[in-house]
Amino acid sequence: MIARAIEWLDGKLRILDQSRLPREQIFADLDNYHDVVLAIEEMRVRGAPAIGVAAAYGIALGASVIKTANKDEFLAQLNQVMQTFAASRPTAVNLFQAINRMKKAARGDGIAEINKSLVNEAKRIHQEEITATRQLSQLGAELVKDGFALLTHCNAGPLATAGYGTALGVIKAAKDQGKTVSVFATETRPLLQGARLTTWELRQEGIPVTLITDSMAGYFMQQGKIDCVIVGADRIAANGDAANKIGTYTLAVLAKENRIPFYVAAPTSTVDLSLSSGDKIPIEERSPDEVTHIQGVPIAPEGIGAANPAFDVTPHTYITAIITEKGVVRGPYTEGLKGMGSRFL
Amino acid sequence: MIARAIEWLDGKLRILDQSRLPREQIFADLDNYHDVVLAIEEMRVRGAPAIGVAAAYGIALGASVIKTANKDEFLAQLNQVMQTFAASRPTAVNLFQAINRMKKAARGDGIAEINKSLVNEAKRIHQEEITATRQLSQLGAELVKDGFALLTHCNAGPLATAGYGTALGVIKAAKDQGKTVSVFATETRPLLQGARLTTWELRQEGIPVTLITDSMAGYFMQQGKIDCVIVGADRIAANGDAANKIGTYTLAVLAKENRIPFYVAAPTSTVDLSLSSGDKIPIEERSPDEVTHIQGVPIAPEGIGAANPAFDVTPHTYITAIITEKGVVRGPYTEGLKGMGSRFL
Repeated sequence: MIARAIEWLDGKLRILDQSRLPREQIFADLDNYHDVVLAIEEMRVRGAPAIGVAAAYGIALGASVIKTANKDEFLAQLNQVMQTFAASRPTAVNLFQAINRMKKAARGDGIAEINKSLVNEAKRIHQEEITATRQLSQLGAELVKDGFALLTHCNAGPLATAGYGTALGVIKAAKDQGKTVSVFATETRPLLQGARLTTWELRQEGIPVTLITDSMAGYFMQQGKIDCVIVGADRIAANGDAANKIGTYTLAVLAKENRIPFYVAAPTSTVDLSLSSGDKIPIEERSPDEVTHIQGVPIAPEGIGAANPAFDVTPHTYITAIITEKGVVRGPYTEGLKGMGSRFL
Repeated sequence: MIARAIEWLDGKLRILDQSRLPREQIFADLDNYHDVVLAIEEMRVRGAPAIGVAAAYGIALGASVIKTANKDEFLAQLNQVMQTFAASRPTAVNLFQAINRMKKAARGDGIAEINKSLVNEAKRIHQEEITATRQLSQLGAELVKDGFALLTHCNAGPLATAGYGTALGVIKAAKDQGKTVSVFATETRPLLQGARLTTWELRQEGIPVTLITDSMAGYFMQQGKIDCVIVGADRIAANGDAANKIGTYTLAVLAKENRIPFYVAAPTSTVDLSLSSGDKIPIEERSPDEVTHIQGVPIAPEGIGAANPAFDVTPHTYITAIITEKGVVRGPYTEGLKGMGSRFL
């Protein structure tokens, strides 16, 4: 399954607006890089690998409209475009990896050639995510036994990855191997990616799914109903500490307490070898309105203060294995992840 | 603070409709016991002690309209009324304690006398909850240090108890002792009692509150921002295992992992000495619509299956202390709780 969450069509970026799913399937054709930045900020495109891919195409879009024949001036303006993307969301490292790659790809004899090189690099990044998520899904599926009930958090499917999905890719690959699998999907407040997107994707794949609130995961683990937890990641530090959607740390603690394997599935584009540990990962703080309102409806008294950290960091000690396209890595992760990610120094 | 969540007025039961708070403050005067049953089922009255008090008044209402002069016939019909209340919600033991007390109070020479006795017993149950929650709040406040940031789940304030509140009563009493306190309130999906009711009550008391999603509690514990967790309970078994709103077990596991004290505050009317351990506590399964919809708005694809256990059980090993009106009990709880609750054999 490859969702058409992100497509490059005749010099435009077509995105499936994830903020409106599942109620509306609306595709938007973006030909202005500011709109791509906004789509990332407003989470109409979301999921670490998908953010990287969208930003790469967005940078190519931004480059294509720079109005100068002077190469230095062009590169200076291109740098501005890249800075705008870099400021859109702080946690997913795939964004910064994509920007770095686009920076390196901005070469050529003339501006036309640079533009062509940028589009090609964006396509390459996209294709690599497709390949990587397909590979890691195959590798991860070996960890899933017949009859497993898996719990996942947020959405780590094709929508999130511009590829096959990470956590959901593994589950799908296990099913394709002939195993019977079922899924508990946490709704994932505040923005309900689990309720809206994961259930939607799993149903399309014919995989049985039970929606639960985030607060119910512990109950079902305690009851022995869950065989393993599998989630994606937004940034993995060199020691294996993994940032992912807020609530992931909680699931990892619950899994450990209930002796349930806890897997992180992510392409190596999510690994940041320049950070020695997870406490150095920047955690995005989003608008409190996302907590005090649900789909526009207020749920709290007016004016009540709310916090809204979008991610948390799961220390590597809670992680049974990290599933990448280059192999399934187990602790000590500093050793296992060596050479598997990028450095941003 | 005693919320006028439940009041007996001239032979009618006035309730503040908790399902409509905080957006609307609507009082309903119930003079028909079926309406009281419905109010409990639909959680317009909720919280273990408040359910017990409402049921007691509801039974008195039900008795007052029984049309027979025959005492045996009267008691048989009264028993039917009680059965209806017993079937309304299964987890909070206060309901069954109230029913048992009303059954014993159904005595007198004539029907008029029995009716009078029933009303008096309901008032007595109500007054006892007020006294008990005030006392346990005072006792629990000793555990709260100046400057504490407390995390609470669901709503265990005056609304929930028809008294001073349990968890929130303790917090309020600590403030009244001159301590500076602040609160993290989990929103408490699916029905958002934390977002809707706890924030509303704390603001009335001038206690600073930060609303968070259920999934954020772990993050703030990990960050060292939370000094203790305090929650109410719906039923406590003889060994100290405590049933409370779904998600409580998760908070207890997180608290243990982060070495944060985890307190349960409850009047002894919540203690069920006839159950040796928490796995025997019946857990209510409510409609999946409460998960797939928020305040009427669908959040998942149509037809997606959802689970909705309303409570979970926190094993006693995770509980630092149980705060009752008769004292602060620490493990081993079987010893400490001896004689502190009721038996239902």
